[in-house]
This record gives sequence, structure tokens and C-alpha cells, in this order.
Amino acid sequence: MKQLSLDEIDANFHVPKTVTDTDITWRDVRQAPFAVYGLYDYKKTVPFRRMPEETASAVSAGVAELAYNTAGGRVRFSTDSDLIAIHATMNRIGKMPHIPLTGSAGFDLYVDDPATGTSRYFRTFMPPFDIVDGYEAAVRFPSRKLRYITVNFPLYAGVDTLLIGTRDHATVGEGLRYRDSAPIVYYGSSITQGGCASRPGNCYQNIVARRTGLDYVNLGFSGSGKAEDAMIDYLASLKMCAFVSDYDHNAPNPQHLRNTHCKLYKAIRAAHPDVPYLMISRIDFDSAYTENLARRDVILDTYRYAREQGDRNVYYIDGASVFRGPDEDGCTVDGTHPNDHGFALYADALCAELKRAFTESAFL
Amino acid sequence: MKQLSLDEIDANFHVPKTVTDTDITWRDVRQAPFAVYGLYDYKKTVPFRRMPEETASAVSAGVAELAYNTAGGRVRFSTDSDLIAIHATMNRIGKMPHIPLTGSAGFDLYVDDPATGTSRYFRTFMPPFDIVDGYEAAVRFPSRKLRYITVNFPLYAGVDTLLIGTRDHATVGEGLRYRDSAPIVYYGSSITQGGCASRPGNCYQNIVARRTGLDYVNLGFSGSGKAEDAMIDYLASLKMCAFVSDYDHNAPNPQHLRNTHCKLYKAIRAAHPDVPYLMISRIDFDSAYTENLARRDVILDTYRYAREQGDRNVYYIDGASVFRGPDEDGCTVDGTHPNDHGFALYADALCAELKRAFTESAFL
Repeated sequence: MKQLSLDEIDANFHVPKTVTDTDITWRDVRQAPFAVYGLYDYKKTVPFRRMPEETASAVSAGVAELAYNTAGGRVRFSTDSDLIAIHATMNRIGKMPHIPLTGSAGFDLYVDDPATGTSRYFRTFMPPFDIVDGYEAAVRFPSRKLRYITVNFPLYAGVDTLLIGTRDHATVGEGLRYRDSAPIVYYGSSITQGGCASRPGNCYQNIVARRTGLDYVNLGFSGSGKAEDAMIDYLASLKMCAFVSDYDHNAPNPQHLRNTHCKLYKAIRAAHPDVPYLMISRIDFDSAYTENLARRDVILDTYRYAREQGDRNVYYIDGASVFRGPDEDGCTVDGTHPNDHGFALYADALCAELKRAFTESAFL
Repeated sequence: MKQLSLDEIDANFHVPKTVTDTDITWRDVRQAPFAVYGLYDYKKTVPFRRMPEETASAVSAGVAELAYNTAGGRVRFSTDSDLIAIHATMNRIGKMPHIPLTGSAGFDLYVDDPATGTSRYFRTFMPPFDIVDGYEAAVRFPSRKLRYITVNFPLYAGVDTLLIGTRDHATVGEGLRYRDSAPIVYYGSSITQGGCASRPGNCYQNIVARRTGLDYVNLGFSGSGKAEDAMIDYLASLKMCAFVSDYDHNAPNPQHLRNTHCKLYKAIRAAHPDVPYLMISRIDFDSAYTENLARRDVILDTYRYAREQGDRNVYYIDGASVFRGPDEDGCTVDGTHPNDHGFALYADALCAELKRAFTESAFL
């Protein structure tokens, strides 16, 4: 018997490979009225990247490579087109067994509400399973009216160029802006980079951004978040409204964490005396219990040190508490990397602490 | 510059392709002391399948094909081995952009507690991204002691043979049994089949099984849940402790739903006067609002009809309510198929209603 493929059987699983509509005008997101968030000097930098090439190379081979991954990238604009298409040329495609291509190499689309600043997921630009160097896809609205749009970039892939397609006669204008001019800066591991969210909108930073209206930069580097001096210097140099230290998982051992964790805190704090500083211990706490106790001690020591210095703007999130609940063992795909359920709880924990941080800051 | 691959950069993403330990004894799960749940006549049927071949072929080409997918399959046993390996030969591999291979083609492992009947996720047997016709993988415990194990079969792949490997001198015995001899029978669509859970343990039926201790049969058929007469007859013929009607999504239109939905109810009820009958309307309610209102009316009409007949053991779950909450737009990967966050909420809704159903039944 001929084996039917799934997209022959189930139209909901059918993935069209190209946009066949002919009345589409394509625009480069590096040009106005588009604004790209979360990517470094995006108007001039090809391919898109998360930090300067020279700095990334000075940190490690891993960061040099992963800086091309567009985790945290977002483009915003407005249009009254009833169709929005993307044409992405890509230089790296993250192909892994435990993250779907929609998350590693896909873009997804949210509709932003100018009245409230909130965003609502609409559709995923579905990449084909045999993706090689980019793809083209479209989403369609049931009506033509002015909408504010955010399109999220892939978490584990590199992008050379992103074109946005709208109907030939549609308007294209500026998108919504974030609430604050400086972003939250996240530094960390593969989990921070977004592994293994099913689509970019469900990485924890994107959830936090939607709930708070705050911009962010995702500096999670899979396996390569080791707080090297060059990375610490770079992080301290960034503009930020808050800093999240989330690299426990990539410190090779508790001693490495001890050698770097408080050093990172001091460097950020020296450059940014007033921003909330959040630190989180690893969330897959059960995986190596004894070692994780030692790691948590290091992070608590940094936290205590900061408090003893009189820092009232430092916050500790216990990673072991993030998944606590009836589904706590359902929050990862492999015992380490959160799935979308884990990322929703991750965002809950961060939002609660950020809310406390910004409220506390208001009293300082 | 040479592009580093992700598993070169991040050891956490490294997927070993074969089990290299030499002190492993392999056993076929079709033989005692293993017990396989959720698959049809598994001792004699090769490949594994969810229903008889002849019946599946009588229903539709889609069901004939998808009956080979092992969604809902589980094998249980006990062992004191500190290593558990699988060697799976597979005849179909579901490769889709919006479900990771861990979910479509992977097995995952839970440790069952004989004292409470509860289960806890331990690890995923990670399939390689370039999987062709099966794979071999191992998980390792930190100690050697007697453990009760459940290994879940893939959701969107076919399995010819599954061997379980344990240390040569380890014990291998019977696994835990489910609480009731008859399973819950689920009938439905791709969502019912488990698309797009990140691993088999996170499909909603598996969550329900862990929370209730009840066995189940997953008869979700991607795109092919259309309640044909041959399928209705087959469903009615099954042993069951409860029935879940969840095929709204695959009925081609509201009229098709009307032609079949109450018919399915009547057939199941005629064969099983006493089992709880749960019906759920589609969960991605916003995707086609007007049509979905019409679909919901059909389901409500079946529900009302049943109540009017004096049936006190029928339950209606409003699909539009399942994802309600702060993350309701974060529950799918593509606007239709739940991610693990959506499936956790799906399980919440079903468990609440099943609890009501079994409590009500106790009063009947």
C-alpha cells in the first residue's frame, strides 16, 4: 500500500512552500517604516545578529556562531493589508529533534493593540520541513483594516534578509513602540535562547515583553553562556532597564559559577547602579541534585553579597520553584529544556519578580 | 568561518545515535513480563497498530494509514537496572515543521510509584534528527534499585518492533497496572492524536491517565476523524469505562457534524448504557468564529437530546473555554494544534469533568 503523507491526509498539516498571490509588494524590514527590536545595529548589519561580530569572536567560538541566531528579534509595523507575507533568506537552520522548526527556524505573528499595548498571537509563518536557506509564507486576515503587527524572528536560525509582503495597495506604517526606551537584557544558556519553545512568541522573554510592554535583548547562547570577561564587559556596556542573569546552566561547574557570578553582578551594577538585577538558579533542579545545591549556594551568595552592600534592587528567583505544581514534570521536553508549558511558568516567575522590582524601584 | 553545529557548541543538544554499552540484554515488549497498553492485539500484530487493519481500511484511506501511528501506546514493566535502553524499528516517521521529532517519533520514560499509582517523567529517548527507520537510545538512573516504568510510544510514527534493554544481570518484572480494566476511549482529530505535543507523555490523554490512574485508547486520526459508520460501529464495540467524543475539528462542515454527532452518541450509548460520555467542541474557537458557533450548536443539540432522554451521564465541555486565561493565545503552535501548555489545560478540563462524571456515576 502506498503510504500517504500526513499533509495528504490532514489539510491542517499542509504546509505551502511559496506565496502564489501576485498582488504583493515586498519591503525590506531594515528600512522605515519598519522597526526591528532585539538585534544589533540591524539597519547596517548583514546577516542579522545579536551582538557585534568582533565582540562575539572575542568571547568564544560558540558565541561567535550563536550570535547569528536571531533569538529575541522582532519587527513591528502597521498595515491595512488582509494578507501579510514573509520572504526570509536564511544562513543557518537549527535542526534538532526536540524543538520544532516553527520554533528554531520559524517566524510567528502577533496583532498589537494600540489602545492597551497588549499583543495577541495570530498565526505562524509555517516553514517547510525540508527548509534549506529560507522560506516564504503568508498569513491571511478575514478583513482589511488597520492592524499593528509584531513578527518574531526564529530562535535557532540565522537570517540574512527579511522582506514583508503586503497587498499592493495596502498602507504600511510604523508599528507600536515599547513602553520604555531601554530594554531588559537577558544573559544565559540555551534555555534563555529559547530552547525548546514551539514558536518564537512562546520563549519566556517574549511572554514577559507582551505582559509588561518592555523591550528586551536575548543574549542566551546555547551551551556558551559562561560569563567570560569579554562578555561581562559587553553586557555592562549595554543600555538596559533591568538585567536578568540566567546562565547557571552553562557554567561548567559550581566553581566556574563562583568565579564569574558575582563578578558579573559587580560589573553590571557598576555600570547601572539603578536597574533591577534579577538572578535565577537552574530550573531543572532534580537533574543533578547535589551539584545543583552547590550552584544555588553560589547564586545565593551573590544575592546576599549584594544585599549586604545595601543593594535593594536585586532579586533572586529560585529555579527549583518555577515548575512547582501538578504538572511540574511536564514542563520540559527532555528534562532540561522547557516546552511551552515550562516557558509560561518561567514567564510567571519573572513577571512577578519584575513587578516587585519596578514597584520597589518606585519607592527607592 | 566554519559553521559549528549546535551539538558541537552545546553538549545538552548532543544526540547520541546508538547505545554503546555492551552489557545489555534486549527483550521484546510483545512478550511477558512486559504489558503494552493502548495498542490493538499487540502480541500478535506486526507492526503495532491502534485498530484492526480490516476495520481501519473500511473506514477511510486516512484511518487505514494512521492506524499504524502508535499514539496512546505504552509499555509497562519493572526493573532494577540503572540503564534502560530502547531499540525501535519503525515503519513511518512523522516529519512535520510544527511538532518536534521527540513528539512525533520519540519515546519518553516515566517512573511509576506503586504506592500511589502516580507517575513522574524521567527522560526522553532522544531520536536523531536524521531518523530513517527507527533508533536506539538509553536513559540512565543515578542508582540501581527496583523501579516501575512506563515508556510511551510515538504519536505520529509507526513501530514494527520495540526492544527494551537492561543491564545483563538486572531483574525485569511486571509493571504497574491501571486502576480499572476498561480504558477511556478517545475519538477525534489530529489534536486527539497528540499534535503537537513535544513528547508523547504530554498528549492530553497521557496527562489524564497519570492523574486518574485509568488506562485509555487514543483513536485520534489526523484529519480523518469523520465518524463514518464503520468507525462508529467499531467504537461502540470496544470495552470502555468512559467515552470522549472530540472530532469536531475533522467534520468537514457543521452539516457533516450534524449528520454524525448524535448518531455516534446513540451508538455508544446503546452499547454502553452506563459509561460517562464526554463531548467537547473545538478548542481553536476563534479561527472560524461563525462556523464554530454552528458547530457548537450541533454538539449542544446532542447534549440536550441526551439529557432530554434522561441521560444523566453525559458531559459537555465547551472547547472555547479550555484555553481561557492570561496565556490563552499561547496554547497552540499554529492557531490550531495545542502545544504542551495547551495540552495541560486540555487535561485540566477533561479531568475536572471526568471527576464530576465518576462522582455522579457513583450516585446514579
